[in-house]
Amino acid sequence: MVAHTNPSLESQALGQLYKSKASRLDATSKIGMEALRSMYEEEQSCTSEAPGVSYEDVVAGGRPALWATPPGPNVHGVIMYFHGGGFSVGSPNSHRKVAGHLSKASNSYALILDYRLAPEHPYPAALDDTTAAYRWLLERGFKPSQIATAGDSAGGNLATSTVLRLRQEGVPLPAAIISFSPWYNLKNDFGTMTSNDARDMLVHRHQLDDMAATYVGKHSLVDPLTNPLYADLTGLPPIYIAVGSDETLEDDGVIFADKARKAGVTVEFERADGQQHVYVFMAGRAPEASLTIQRVGSWVAEQLR
Amino acid sequence: MVAHTNPSLESQALGQLYKSKASRLDATSKIGMEALRSMYEEEQSCTSEAPGVSYEDVVAGGRPALWATPPGPNVHGVIMYFHGGGFSVGSPNSHRKVAGHLSKASNSYALILDYRLAPEHPYPAALDDTTAAYRWLLERGFKPSQIATAGDSAGGNLATSTVLRLRQEGVPLPAAIISFSPWYNLKNDFGTMTSNDARDMLVHRHQLDDMAATYVGKHSLVDPLTNPLYADLTGLPPIYIAVGSDETLEDDGVIFADKARKAGVTVEFERADGQQHVYVFMAGRAPEASLTIQRVGSWVAEQLR
Repeated sequence: MVAHTNPSLESQALGQLYKSKASRLDATSKIGMEALRSMYEEEQSCTSEAPGVSYEDVVAGGRPALWATPPGPNVHGVIMYFHGGGFSVGSPNSHRKVAGHLSKASNSYALILDYRLAPEHPYPAALDDTTAAYRWLLERGFKPSQIATAGDSAGGNLATSTVLRLRQEGVPLPAAIISFSPWYNLKNDFGTMTSNDARDMLVHRHQLDDMAATYVGKHSLVDPLTNPLYADLTGLPPIYIAVGSDETLEDDGVIFADKARKAGVTVEFERADGQQHVYVFMAGRAPEASLTIQRVGSWVAEQLR
Repeated sequence: MVAHTNPSLESQALGQLYKSKASRLDATSKIGMEALRSMYEEEQSCTSEAPGVSYEDVVAGGRPALWATPPGPNVHGVIMYFHGGGFSVGSPNSHRKVAGHLSKASNSYALILDYRLAPEHPYPAALDDTTAAYRWLLERGFKPSQIATAGDSAGGNLATSTVLRLRQEGVPLPAAIISFSPWYNLKNDFGTMTSNDARDMLVHRHQLDDMAATYVGKHSLVDPLTNPLYADLTGLPPIYIAVGSDETLEDDGVIFADKARKAGVTVEFERADGQQHVYVFMAGRAPEASLTIQRVGSWVAEQLR
């Protein structure tokens, strides 16, 4: 565990954006999904551009996606990036720059997938899309050992559940998982959901309960593929988990890391003091976010060698 | 004039997006500026990524901006890009990809400026920012002969009025102006405002009248620097104007082109049949948009040599 004892001034801007969003959400008792998605796109404004990284529109396994290319030579491997947004909002656009920083820090390509969202497309639509995109990478000649999955919040769940689903289907697994502020426990009943509620500027239980119900639809909140805490984690590839100490979802990362270690999985765990949910959104602007991106980038580059 | 007699199916998607926006605007009699700005950001979704172009956050003359770098060697010159949005909405994010395509097609850098917006910052704040960014380029070693201004809609106005303001201040002028679907006539009383009203999916007079009043504030709708149709255009650099035949602002481009020619300015004029306001938003997706970008790119590369 790495502690940042003095949160930077820069990193506090994310909390301010979250606070502004939360107040607008509170002001609108029935904000439509279209307006909510539009508001969520503002997330991208937190993140700086990753200089030298370029992007291309592709279609990966039937879904639109962005393909990020880092500036250096000898690019190796590809990181599949699944954006957060409670399985119902967010897009490649909102997370393009975060994934771009990760691409640059690891000198790997990044595939930023526009997987289908709830409520129009509840579970298992997102996993159908992420696994189809993985197969698309294999068809293009990437080996499982050259592929990592990654994501934040609901996307951290997908980065993990995608691997569990691939294992279920007998497909060779990717080499690594990166999970930023993951939302694993769709029951939303861990201790930090309450104890960090006042410090978390964005994520609160009533929203999570709504989004979880929307995502799982007729399925269960404790299905191993909706809630990886209920899965057998044996045989999972190495996983890097990073959480902020000021988020209600802190325990999701802590408890999953513990469970994974007990199942024999190699776990890298980082908890950033005073940081909000998905603090890596501040990549290139706040030192805590940039430091985590550098660490994760070096780590995943080692896994993909 | 170049006519595209059969608008492509792809190019019709822009009209659909505009129609969706217009219906949401009509449904909300008092949409707040924050919600309007958030909605306008969707514009970016029309445009494909320009493969190989990378971006960097910079501060240009005191304002945030994106610096786009094309993929090839021997990059020459820089295009200052001013986004549209009625002087009150829009951002480097909404127009990043359009400017990226222009950067690639001309093998020039692009500087996509986050100039200040009305109503918080009415005229002349935007021109203060654009001219400060021009001076910043000169300080960085670019020669006026290596710089073009560009923009769409209100940004087409700024691309032109920036040059007029520089002339007023005795600063050496840039080498070229690119003006996509410019909004010059803040009186909004030309013929196509009425004759194209039914075909234009987005821009209608009542909105323009509101935005014009908001932008000019205490100043005049016919000041040469708010409304370049009232300026002496003698001595302006070569200008490329492209409009859609289905937009209410068609006449702004047509009449300005005529006035500029009469003042001895070299004018390249293109009218794309069946195309909407700022049809270059479809760059990389609709052939009409890509064709105009290619033409403008080649043209401006010649001017900046």
